[in-house]
Amino acid sequence: MAPDIEVIPDGSVTTPQGFLAGAIYAGIKTYGEDKLDLGILYSEHPASAAGTFSTNKVLAGSVKVTQRQIARGTARAVVVNSGCANCCVGEQSIKDALETIALTARKLGVPQEEVLICSTGVIGVELPMGLIREALPKITLSREGGHAFARAILTTDTRPKEIALALSIGGRQVHIGGCAKGAGMIHPNMATMLAFLTTDAAIDPPLLRTMLKEAVDASFNMIDVDNDQSTNDTVLLLANRASGAPLLQPHTPEADLFQQALTQACVSLAKDIVRYAEGATKLIEATVEEAPTLQDARRAARAIVSSNLVKTAVYGGDPNWGRVMMAIGKSGTPIDESRVALYINDICVMEGGVPIPYFKNALVNSMKAREVRFRVRLGLGTARATAWGSDLSEAYVTLNSAYST
Amino acid sequence: MAPDIEVIPDGSVTTPQGFLAGAIYAGIKTYGEDKLDLGILYSEHPASAAGTFSTNKVLAGSVKVTQRQIARGTARAVVVNSGCANCCVGEQSIKDALETIALTARKLGVPQEEVLICSTGVIGVELPMGLIREALPKITLSREGGHAFARAILTTDTRPKEIALALSIGGRQVHIGGCAKGAGMIHPNMATMLAFLTTDAAIDPPLLRTMLKEAVDASFNMIDVDNDQSTNDTVLLLANRASGAPLLQPHTPEADLFQQALTQACVSLAKDIVRYAEGATKLIEATVEEAPTLQDARRAARAIVSSNLVKTAVYGGDPNWGRVMMAIGKSGTPIDESRVALYINDICVMEGGVPIPYFKNALVNSMKAREVRFRVRLGLGTARATAWGSDLSEAYVTLNSAYST
Repeated sequence: MAPDIEVIPDGSVTTPQGFLAGAIYAGIKTYGEDKLDLGILYSEHPASAAGTFSTNKVLAGSVKVTQRQIARGTARAVVVNSGCANCCVGEQSIKDALETIALTARKLGVPQEEVLICSTGVIGVELPMGLIREALPKITLSREGGHAFARAILTTDTRPKEIALALSIGGRQVHIGGCAKGAGMIHPNMATMLAFLTTDAAIDPPLLRTMLKEAVDASFNMIDVDNDQSTNDTVLLLANRASGAPLLQPHTPEADLFQQALTQACVSLAKDIVRYAEGATKLIEATVEEAPTLQDARRAARAIVSSNLVKTAVYGGDPNWGRVMMAIGKSGTPIDESRVALYINDICVMEGGVPIPYFKNALVNSMKAREVRFRVRLGLGTARATAWGSDLSEAYVTLNSAYST
Repeated sequence: MAPDIEVIPDGSVTTPQGFLAGAIYAGIKTYGEDKLDLGILYSEHPASAAGTFSTNKVLAGSVKVTQRQIARGTARAVVVNSGCANCCVGEQSIKDALETIALTARKLGVPQEEVLICSTGVIGVELPMGLIREALPKITLSREGGHAFARAILTTDTRPKEIALALSIGGRQVHIGGCAKGAGMIHPNMATMLAFLTTDAAIDPPLLRTMLKEAVDASFNMIDVDNDQSTNDTVLLLANRASGAPLLQPHTPEADLFQQALTQACVSLAKDIVRYAEGATKLIEATVEEAPTLQDARRAARAIVSSNLVKTAVYGGDPNWGRVMMAIGKSGTPIDESRVALYINDICVMEGGVPIPYFKNALVNSMKAREVRFRVRLGLGTARATAWGSDLSEAYVTLNSAYST
């Protein structure tokens, strides 16, 4: 990554100037080790806001309400609950989302239109509003609250996922903070989990939207855990100008640098989601090179990390590269077998469409590491993309066969 | 099914008149309990032939050659090997497919153009032609050979899958026979395994193709084991007129009856593939009703049986219907939540977009059976489709994490 971008140790969504956060245990989440389940993220200053949302046609009430609110391009706060998805309960989900927003707006003294809401958890049960009404006013916001907020959004996640970066714009230090949750029901082509990003840079809503989409397409939309798409997935980005840096202008070196940092933050969170996914033992990284178009490269890379047969082969440390070819073949990406080269952990196993006599024992040995890399050269163009996926273990099945009962 | 269609006990591809088959162990398949791995299916009379093939862009040499051969619309024989997919080995796969065809044509005394070939097994290794040259001439064909042929096509399948039906056309008894293999790498939208169908009815190639496509779309294209698509999948149908029944004409009651029987045979084989799939403990049947179009109904039904989260929930006997809603939502099928009703094993769990207070213990109890049925009413039209899938167990992962090594 660029030397101009610095990772801040122990960073969070409250690392950027002017953001406060906090969380509490309301009693909604009855599983998991981390019992915080209701959190608020708050900007002390007016902030530009952008979001990307699930493409699932069944959407949680919280998502529908946030989509409507964020259209205005500004927001002051986000309220989040885990444990209940607020989905598939009819009109009640809209009412409960709006009431939770109203409670938050009242607590913070900001207009209701400036509050966004996200929910994650079990589908088909109503938000326990009694618990929320009681707990929400008790949340304490602070500059250190980012870590508590990051824990409050978790469901079956095994750990919080956080990041903060610093970069310089117009002589001012600017920060990007982020946290994410996601353990299952994760598949490319949508914002496949919850992620919250903050920055003290000054960015108007139209540019903020463009930048968020570009970052999400290269990160959260390139990961796969289990081919499934949630009804609640949301990525939100708030930019509150508190750094005092000048307003970012499109197509400038400063905008490029910020874009690079934002994408880096999203990729870091996305990879953490996959690395610590339900039942995951290994991170799979698939890079497809020399594709005709970026779309082709992305489609092929995602097909590799999404394939159950590739996932199980990686879990077993089996260099079964035929499954990678099968996955690319079914992706719809153009392919000319005679031009394809395939590498596992940088060891070439196939070139010009035919297997090469690689040293199998050495490759099997290298696949015991926590990360397994596939690289495919298609020989048909110059586009390139990388996707990340979890492997598939018996533990995934065990975890997911006993979730709601 | 129609009372005019009779299931013949212990039937096979050689139940229809004029078909012989046989198989041998050539030594290609080094796993599985059933060691037959090279088989021939032969029609004593000229036969119309139709096929459907994998939509994967990486195709086995055997598939490419068979696609070319079958374009003429007639065939006398099919040669099949298991243990090696004859795929991803470059031009050698074409040469080996053609040589195997030539050996078969010489043995049977038929033109090479009239022989089709299918292969299934590991990708990325060449067909062991030395073994095939030695074993193929020793295959003995007989009227009882259908069962041996059905065993020779198996890979990790736990049992053969066969069917035979009888019906009456123009006062003559007509038969349909079939066998199939498929245990993993099975997903809708292609002919997702190997299946061979025979009939002694008289059907010209154009009608035969139409009928096969219709039957495959309602059966093999509606099943899912693991979301993956093989590079070798093929369904072949041979019609040799040996029954003496009159030539079937399109759009007649006889053609409708035959179509019904052909679809029934394919559905039976397709359900057996799912029922006895790798690591499967339960058959999932998903029916989507009141969809705007047949395509919408099929897409939604397939999304349900393809979802890893639905599969694991069924494995665990967990009535987690939110996952069914998630799966329909991501399928792209139009949905209006307020009109949706959802039944598990005929027990209604959701109606008008809101959960209903079903008796959970009774439903959990009913989900312990070997078959679990989901029924969804979309309330948007009149189209209806059914799909079948396996559940996802720890055993699937264990089996597939140690396949080639």
